[in-house]
Amino acid sequence: MDEETRADAIHRLKSIAGHVNGIVRMLEEERYCIDVIKQIQAAQTALARVSESILDSHLRTCVTTAIQGDDPAERERMLKEVVEVFRYQDK
Amino acid sequence: MDEETRADAIHRLKSIAGHVNGIVRMLEEERYCIDVIKQIQAAQTALARVSESILDSHLRTCVTTAIQGDDPAERERMLKEVVEVFRYQDK
Amino acid sequence: MDEETRADAIHRLKSIAGHVNGIVRMLEEERYCIDVIKQIQAAQTALARVSESILDSHLRTCVTTAIQGDDPAERERMLKEVVEVFRYQDK
Amino acid sequence: MDEETRADAIHRLKSIAGHVNGIVRMLEEERYCIDVIKQIQAAQTALARVSESILDSHLRTCVTTAIQGDDPAERERMLKEVVEVFRYQDK
Repeated sequence: MDEETRADAIHRLKSIAGHVNGIVRMLEEERYCIDVIKQIQAAQTALARVSESILDSHLRTCVTTAIQGDDPAERERMLKEVVEVFRYQDK
Repeated sequence: MDEETRADAIHRLKSIAGHVNGIVRMLEEERYCIDVIKQIQAAQTALARVSESILDSHLRTCVTTAIQGDDPAERERMLKEVVEVFRYQDK
Repeated sequence: MDEETRADAIHRLKSIAGHVNGIVRMLEEERYCIDVIKQIQAAQTALARVSESILDSHLRTCVTTAIQGDDPAERERMLKEVVEVFRYQDK
Repeated sequence: MDEETRADAIHRLKSIAGHVNGIVRMLEEERYCIDVIKQIQAAQTALARVSESILDSHLRTCVTTAIQGDDPAERERMLKEVVEVFRYQDK
């Protein structure tokens, strides 16, 4: 992962943790269920955006290096992992 | 939402916020991209479980009350909201 | 499910089956992988829209009847099923 | 995409089209809404499995070739496409 992506992911995840703590407060204040669910869904989407950004960087750095390298087992392992995270998303 | 569901959701969301902060630390320690993505996906799933639990309680309390009540507009509004959150999940 | 929703769902599912057969032809013509994947994803979204529409009608008919009825076990069963299909969507 | 993956995808998509036509018959026979929704969700999952398999093959063939090749624009385009289909899955 490149440094810009890492810094951006850290920034976004800190903000998502804050968002989730905000949803805790919504529950403590007995806010309406559907409003709470919508905020939880927004946090899920924000997490998915961070995954995407990390995957994008991973493909451009580690995966590209492995594919250009001369270790077929390493290349195989990398591609398998990408398919696995793709599978998880569409479960 | 009933009190047990609310308390449980608060507990789980606090733990998810902690999990997300743990992912920030993984990034700061330059842990492997795919391991980070898998943890983000686990946090997404944990959030989805909280939504489900709140929806379950919402159906048994607010929606049931609205459907048994005599305000058709209120009933309509409630059912619309449930379909909306369902749609969001399968986007 | 009301008759209008049923007729609409039949119409849309027939069209989706045709779409899927069209994707078979894309593969037979050796079309580009990513174009095939995008068409498969479009078919998934189209199926999700049909589910939503059926769920919407189900809530307004069967679930509303069960909630207004005097059989708590039946009501319980109905609400459980709705939560189950919601859970499946966000897996 | 390699030939084995293509043949397998064609086989599976034909079976999914048959499944969707079977769901049309369920609707014509006025089967229970939730049973219909569950079959639609099963068809969505089956489609997702085909996408995954095509993506897996795409990474091993076209993407690997592009990354090993000497056209940075082509490589860039390929990686962008993979991230796009990943984004679609987690919408």
